[in-house]
Amino acid sequence: MYRSLRNLRRLNSNLLALQSSITIKSHGAPSVAHCTVRMASSESYRIERDTFGELKVPSDKYYGAQTVRSTMNFKIGGVTERMPIQVIKAFGILKRAAAEVNKDYGLDPKLADAIVQAADEVTAGKLDDHFPLVVWQTGSGTQTNMNVNEVISNRAIEILGGKLGSKDPVHPNDHVNKSQSSNDTFPTAMHIAAAKEVHEVLLPGLQTLHDALAAKAAEFKDIIKIGRTHTQDAVPLSLGQEFGGYVQQVKYSIERVKSAMPRVYELAAGGTAVGTGLNTRIGFAEKVAAKVSALTGLPFVTAPNKFEALAAHDALVELSGALNTVACSMMKIANDIRFLGSGPRSGLGELILPENEPGSSIMPGKVNPTQCEAMTMVAAQVMGNHVAVTVGGSNGHFELNVFKPMMIKNVLNSARLLGDASVSFTDNCVVGIQANTERINKLMHESLMLVTALNPHIGYDKAATIAKTAHKEGSTLKEMAIKLGYLTEEQFNQWVRPEDMLGPK
Amino acid sequence: MYRSLRNLRRLNSNLLALQSSITIKSHGAPSVAHCTVRMASSESYRIERDTFGELKVPSDKYYGAQTVRSTMNFKIGGVTERMPIQVIKAFGILKRAAAEVNKDYGLDPKLADAIVQAADEVTAGKLDDHFPLVVWQTGSGTQTNMNVNEVISNRAIEILGGKLGSKDPVHPNDHVNKSQSSNDTFPTAMHIAAAKEVHEVLLPGLQTLHDALAAKAAEFKDIIKIGRTHTQDAVPLSLGQEFGGYVQQVKYSIERVKSAMPRVYELAAGGTAVGTGLNTRIGFAEKVAAKVSALTGLPFVTAPNKFEALAAHDALVELSGALNTVACSMMKIANDIRFLGSGPRSGLGELILPENEPGSSIMPGKVNPTQCEAMTMVAAQVMGNHVAVTVGGSNGHFELNVFKPMMIKNVLNSARLLGDASVSFTDNCVVGIQANTERINKLMHESLMLVTALNPHIGYDKAATIAKTAHKEGSTLKEMAIKLGYLTEEQFNQWVRPEDMLGPK
Amino acid sequence: MYRSLRNLRRLNSNLLALQSSITIKSHGAPSVAHCTVRMASSESYRIERDTFGELKVPSDKYYGAQTVRSTMNFKIGGVTERMPIQVIKAFGILKRAAAEVNKDYGLDPKLADAIVQAADEVTAGKLDDHFPLVVWQTGSGTQTNMNVNEVISNRAIEILGGKLGSKDPVHPNDHVNKSQSSNDTFPTAMHIAAAKEVHEVLLPGLQTLHDALAAKAAEFKDIIKIGRTHTQDAVPLSLGQEFGGYVQQVKYSIERVKSAMPRVYELAAGGTAVGTGLNTRIGFAEKVAAKVSALTGLPFVTAPNKFEALAAHDALVELSGALNTVACSMMKIANDIRFLGSGPRSGLGELILPENEPGSSIMPGKVNPTQCEAMTMVAAQVMGNHVAVTVGGSNGHFELNVFKPMMIKNVLNSARLLGDASVSFTDNCVVGIQANTERINKLMHESLMLVTALNPHIGYDKAATIAKTAHKEGSTLKEMAIKLGYLTEEQFNQWVRPEDMLGPK
Amino acid sequence: MYRSLRNLRRLNSNLLALQSSITIKSHGAPSVAHCTVRMASSESYRIERDTFGELKVPSDKYYGAQTVRSTMNFKIGGVTERMPIQVIKAFGILKRAAAEVNKDYGLDPKLADAIVQAADEVTAGKLDDHFPLVVWQTGSGTQTNMNVNEVISNRAIEILGGKLGSKDPVHPNDHVNKSQSSNDTFPTAMHIAAAKEVHEVLLPGLQTLHDALAAKAAEFKDIIKIGRTHTQDAVPLSLGQEFGGYVQQVKYSIERVKSAMPRVYELAAGGTAVGTGLNTRIGFAEKVAAKVSALTGLPFVTAPNKFEALAAHDALVELSGALNTVACSMMKIANDIRFLGSGPRSGLGELILPENEPGSSIMPGKVNPTQCEAMTMVAAQVMGNHVAVTVGGSNGHFELNVFKPMMIKNVLNSARLLGDASVSFTDNCVVGIQANTERINKLMHESLMLVTALNPHIGYDKAATIAKTAHKEGSTLKEMAIKLGYLTEEQFNQWVRPEDMLGPK
Repeated sequence: MYRSLRNLRRLNSNLLALQSSITIKSHGAPSVAHCTVRMASSESYRIERDTFGELKVPSDKYYGAQTVRSTMNFKIGGVTERMPIQVIKAFGILKRAAAEVNKDYGLDPKLADAIVQAADEVTAGKLDDHFPLVVWQTGSGTQTNMNVNEVISNRAIEILGGKLGSKDPVHPNDHVNKSQSSNDTFPTAMHIAAAKEVHEVLLPGLQTLHDALAAKAAEFKDIIKIGRTHTQDAVPLSLGQEFGGYVQQVKYSIERVKSAMPRVYELAAGGTAVGTGLNTRIGFAEKVAAKVSALTGLPFVTAPNKFEALAAHDALVELSGALNTVACSMMKIANDIRFLGSGPRSGLGELILPENEPGSSIMPGKVNPTQCEAMTMVAAQVMGNHVAVTVGGSNGHFELNVFKPMMIKNVLNSARLLGDASVSFTDNCVVGIQANTERINKLMHESLMLVTALNPHIGYDKAATIAKTAHKEGSTLKEMAIKLGYLTEEQFNQWVRPEDMLGPK
Repeated sequence: MYRSLRNLRRLNSNLLALQSSITIKSHGAPSVAHCTVRMASSESYRIERDTFGELKVPSDKYYGAQTVRSTMNFKIGGVTERMPIQVIKAFGILKRAAAEVNKDYGLDPKLADAIVQAADEVTAGKLDDHFPLVVWQTGSGTQTNMNVNEVISNRAIEILGGKLGSKDPVHPNDHVNKSQSSNDTFPTAMHIAAAKEVHEVLLPGLQTLHDALAAKAAEFKDIIKIGRTHTQDAVPLSLGQEFGGYVQQVKYSIERVKSAMPRVYELAAGGTAVGTGLNTRIGFAEKVAAKVSALTGLPFVTAPNKFEALAAHDALVELSGALNTVACSMMKIANDIRFLGSGPRSGLGELILPENEPGSSIMPGKVNPTQCEAMTMVAAQVMGNHVAVTVGGSNGHFELNVFKPMMIKNVLNSARLLGDASVSFTDNCVVGIQANTERINKLMHESLMLVTALNPHIGYDKAATIAKTAHKEGSTLKEMAIKLGYLTEEQFNQWVRPEDMLGPK
Repeated sequence: MYRSLRNLRRLNSNLLALQSSITIKSHGAPSVAHCTVRMASSESYRIERDTFGELKVPSDKYYGAQTVRSTMNFKIGGVTERMPIQVIKAFGILKRAAAEVNKDYGLDPKLADAIVQAADEVTAGKLDDHFPLVVWQTGSGTQTNMNVNEVISNRAIEILGGKLGSKDPVHPNDHVNKSQSSNDTFPTAMHIAAAKEVHEVLLPGLQTLHDALAAKAAEFKDIIKIGRTHTQDAVPLSLGQEFGGYVQQVKYSIERVKSAMPRVYELAAGGTAVGTGLNTRIGFAEKVAAKVSALTGLPFVTAPNKFEALAAHDALVELSGALNTVACSMMKIANDIRFLGSGPRSGLGELILPENEPGSSIMPGKVNPTQCEAMTMVAAQVMGNHVAVTVGGSNGHFELNVFKPMMIKNVLNSARLLGDASVSFTDNCVVGIQANTERINKLMHESLMLVTALNPHIGYDKAATIAKTAHKEGSTLKEMAIKLGYLTEEQFNQWVRPEDMLGPK
Repeated sequence: MYRSLRNLRRLNSNLLALQSSITIKSHGAPSVAHCTVRMASSESYRIERDTFGELKVPSDKYYGAQTVRSTMNFKIGGVTERMPIQVIKAFGILKRAAAEVNKDYGLDPKLADAIVQAADEVTAGKLDDHFPLVVWQTGSGTQTNMNVNEVISNRAIEILGGKLGSKDPVHPNDHVNKSQSSNDTFPTAMHIAAAKEVHEVLLPGLQTLHDALAAKAAEFKDIIKIGRTHTQDAVPLSLGQEFGGYVQQVKYSIERVKSAMPRVYELAAGGTAVGTGLNTRIGFAEKVAAKVSALTGLPFVTAPNKFEALAAHDALVELSGALNTVACSMMKIANDIRFLGSGPRSGLGELILPENEPGSSIMPGKVNPTQCEAMTMVAAQVMGNHVAVTVGGSNGHFELNVFKPMMIKNVLNSARLLGDASVSFTDNCVVGIQANTERINKLMHESLMLVTALNPHIGYDKAATIAKTAHKEGSTLKEMAIKLGYLTEEQFNQWVRPEDMLGPK
């Protein structure tokens, strides 16, 4: 049975290969939905070969045989599972840096310059269509490194007037990958991509949110409201103080992310295959890191220990841990805001949240805290991503961790989602939040917890009697205090002053 | 059954491929990659309005104002974060079922039939370009429900010769969404999508892997090898027995997934806004479930308690838990295979794994267990996805859980990745595994643990002396046994027989 | 430097050993807190030896040299990290069963009977003091298996009038561990312990909670209240319906746990070292499972594949996944109840929760939903435990998973906490919940969402105008409807009837 | 049915209460195991009362009514689930600091001094028996705060010659808890406990491991070995370089933990009930932090924002994230060491690990990497604990996070386990690791990957031919190179020199 199964598989495999060429051929229009993300195709092919034989490569694509082979061997998850484009662009930066350093070390300047030009196009996003590989490939990211090498070499060949697929005059391995290995370039690209996403999306997003919350805290500083502990009525604080807590959380979110960055700024480049730097030159590592730093404006340095930099990705686990903490902060803030804005009639109703879209078709006037919902969903996703990163990060073996593509996918996803959601939440919710001062006042003045202020004047026991009887009979504290004869209305008005309860004395 | 199922799937797959190329041909614009995933656009617009005012809608799109508004309010994560297309297709099935039931209850047959036709197009994937919304929207998925309502109503209007955006004669709310609410339709679509992904991708993938491993277990049944516990040498077993353990894990993986399905087959449809079924008809829920069951061939039923079905998604947490268990099994199997196949000279070297791609450019002859790596990365991702689902599932409040889009995204991702990776792993690794019998034999016969067989003949102490001295001096057990004078070569050959150590007596 | 470091460590180690005996000596009082959990001690010792040399064993302890050695080598975490007592008791059951089966196969009845008696004492908890080992030992649990073997052999020796530590006439390995290996006994004990905890603590706890919630659902069936979706006001449902959702969640919790049990009932016993059953007898596995089944009243069977049963613990990952789903249900229910019971003045205030303890010393009348808090903390813990179990379950290698003690510790902890917390939550919260019908009525009648009932009579647009204007002006729907002249008070009273909004028509 | 159920529960509850007093009475023997952890008891009682009525308190206990009430209301998990003793001791420090500051602000010096003395006894562990409460109580830890207040007040009363339970002259609330609330004291104790555990257990443990690994890296610096990537043979590195990677991981582990500490050093004390500092004095917060800093020698400061400090515990989520990263490092290192030490005959066998305990009774000579197993189990547990902390940390509401006891339990557990396991792993494994140089040499020289060195001399293609043919025919590279006529033996010996492959040129 086994053999027939095997034959069937082979047969099927052949059929699939056939089918895929047919399918591809049947595409006619250059454009196209779903299946074309970074995968435009054409009817014509060129033949390329690698050590496993010949393969048809679409003639309008810069990638080569190894890329095509990966698409055949890893049909996992489809286009939404592509290697994040940020990794591809980070590779563009790295390949440029390496070419420039290689030129210093003797690489033919003509080739080096063509590589630089092609690499810049990768970084600029001009060649996005030429990177079809999914995350679920080899765990070292070798196939994506080769995808980049192939695209840059073919594009450089084109620039120099050569023939695509000829590997002449620019060889993907000998020239584009010179002094490099997938094992050090992929982690380098991981760190570049992560650091850029943090600086370009996450930190600006958090800062935006921070500033908006700080503005609200200032705006609300004189609004005194009931506090809630255990979700139950407690003593008062100002709405500005409450928002001040959120401000602090976001401020620390920024600090937490930043405090994880020093180890993300360390680049593995120069370690080559196992961390020793075999087949590279003394000084290459430092120079590449300096070039990458100059190209990105970020303080990248060469990793002090290349063995650690290839075999472990603790720096990304650490960064993911910071993102996980940010997610906890976001969940708290968004939850509070939706509960404080709940209602309009049967909730807490202290905040009025902006209306951004029509409410339910059958329930007119319904406003849903949709930005809070997007944010809390993002928070849950980041917590999950963190576990994936943790599991991958813990499972390296010997000289190489082979969960690289999965790890960087999740880190980038978390950074992007948190950054984008912070901006969306700010723009479409936070800046438009209004305090429902009438409701806030009403709730605060009805609160039985204000009785606390009477302790020094009439003692805890009488205060307790007032509160409990008021609760039981549904009256106000003042009514009950006077009714019980413990004090006068004047005294009550003088002693029970929420505005005196907002700080130590 | 498995074969016919498989043939059916393949056939279906071919049909889909054919269908999608047709779809593609109907597109005309030259545009492109990344940004065009389900989002082709144009220069001309029509004006639509909702209760918040006027909005420009691309004239070549079927969606309407509420969809556009969502794209403006939720700029989070970009095209890779789109609502999974499986959810959209599941909505197609549900909207058709609802239209047919509504026809029974009095909906104008002309309108109902047009809705059915449009809904079928959604299900067939012909309208994928018209669903641009991301997962990170309102937590009830309302905006995607409206996206579907808008697309179907406009397409139905077109079919009936009306004008796009006129809501006449087919209104997105009054007709397409009739007797429904986002709060019951979205969870219904979640369950349909999850059940279909499980049946179309995950279970066939697991079955494929199961059968290939079972074939290998049979092929390897007579190969006796050293066992390893604590990663250390232990007593022997057959390679077939070792693979038999993997077979059992995959067999149980299938059972685990199946045992979670009964609660996934329960549909929320008919619960409307809060679970009471307000504004729907007695019998609607049951009839819709029956229609969906007929359309999908899966045993869907109406949820016995609609309050639970809207406010909690425990059924998806449970399914995700089954997928998490499958991930553990996959991690174990793939890890074993890569370690058993490690080498070729300095590893365990008992298995020869298929070579699927060129090895490292500087290390000729290097074969990497890349399929194992893809599988273990998938396993880590599924574990992470599971935590995201868990966090979302635990945070429902009152009558509605508002982590719906995030939850279904992760469940579908896990099911798809595990199913696809199982097939890839099978086709590109498992079926091609060969036993390195020479190496296996050598390791087994050198093993000191075979000494265990001497216990009954010469006692534990003498056996221990043989093993320890052999270990110390680096000799074989036989050499040392004879040298120590405890037994003859004949006796050793007679007593130390690995083939007698494979079972109880 | 290294050598001096090493010497330092050894010295330190010796000091610690000395110190610990001194510490122990200083104990004497009946109340020694912390350090005495299963670790009472004495001043006198006997000398035992194993293949590594001589060791002092406290003379009042039944355990032997291997147990003492483990306490020396694994000083990790202290007494709170002891192997769960349920595992020890499960071993008692297993050792009895094995002894009885071994007697059938020829073990001296006198020895077998003494083993049975000693094993029963272990099961009965009479020897708890004699199991000092922590979870963080060898990953196969070998040291705990030997701890059990040593205790039973010494106790059996004592029963037979022999001398402790003499291994005569009952040898820990040859007799107590006969036909067994740690590799099959520990997983057997894991499954027995897990199944018993599920049946004795978890399922009864869940049933208790289920019944109490069902009683409340019945009690509250006629109380109509405002529904809340997205935490915002929505259309009404009955409080009984709301509680009915919780009842369904707990009902399914029970089903989920039960559906994971079939694979937990499979016992590894009979697989010995690597799953082959070397050194055991044909039929041993089946007979032991039958004995265990008889002793426990649970449907244990022998695992159909012993390789899987030793090398993977997917069954526990699966069970943990069920517990994780239960945790999500509990989090939802407890969250709802605390929010519905929030107040007393400034929260939702629909439920009155029992007061179980004095409120804050400075805030009289404050009642905190402490049972909800304990339950949600338990839920969070179970989710975390589940990840630990998952990570351990995914990291088995070859013929043995060596995360056994950690896995069972977490599974038992989750089952116990959920079971206990369910009872505590039921007894101290659920049974005492009262509906605040006045508040519920007030909120419901003020709700703008009741306007939905007017749609069929005056149309969506006029209904929307009523709701929006009422919201804006802070008036009731009825006032506004009449003021706007859309209908009469009579009509309003006739059409807007919450009691007609609780189901389909 | 409901009422009878309720009565049944009450009855049951009473029976349990009765039973538990009986159980307690039956204790008397010095060895009471399990139930005596911090819970020694006696036959006599005193009557105390709180606002809920009278309660019997064991006469030999310092705790009072509120503690007893908590034991009745939270029967969850038993003694192993007690509030970590480190939290209790941290409370001792805090209560002393608060008493001293209160004395500055006017508290009667006699009372203050007695409180200080009693608090010191708590810190010293002399009163451990008097803290019976479990983690699963109110989420603010109020009951443990009151337990501490009661114990200190009663002990102080005793010191001053008063009567236990009289609350005179030292009142638990008015004096011991003066200027404090559970809401600020519990988080303060959490931070003190966490910081101390980090400094006293975790960091010293990591440093110990770091130093031992660094010593090994130095010892092994000249041993050249085969590298492994993707678990497959790769180019060489030195064993010292390989260990150097581990050293770097542990070095960064220490840095990561330290970089999380600044926010842990912030104390909530002075925020009282909701963060405003109501009922405390200006300057109290700063003075208490300074006292705690002086008492502990750690740089504690008052939290700049008390609202954040009560409502969120992001600082603990962040610290837990650092511990999670450490766990990943530990998993990697321990996995590597067990695989490199696998064998003795059929594994990689490059390292010889110390033998710490007898091997399997039936498999003489078997050494298991048990310390690696304990360490990897700890790592898995820490990853799980981190998820529990994350879930708890994300679920704070309004002015208070009520997952406090659960969060600190997990953080302390992670810190302790990692610290202890690091020392155990160092002492019982790392320091005793020996390199199996013979085996290392053999594997390295057989490796086909050394062919890489020939690339510059004979080109990649010929080098590939040598490697592939050698692999196919099972010969050495040298034999094959000469046989193929590509070079002479002299040339081979000159060119293929592993010692030249360890770095860039």
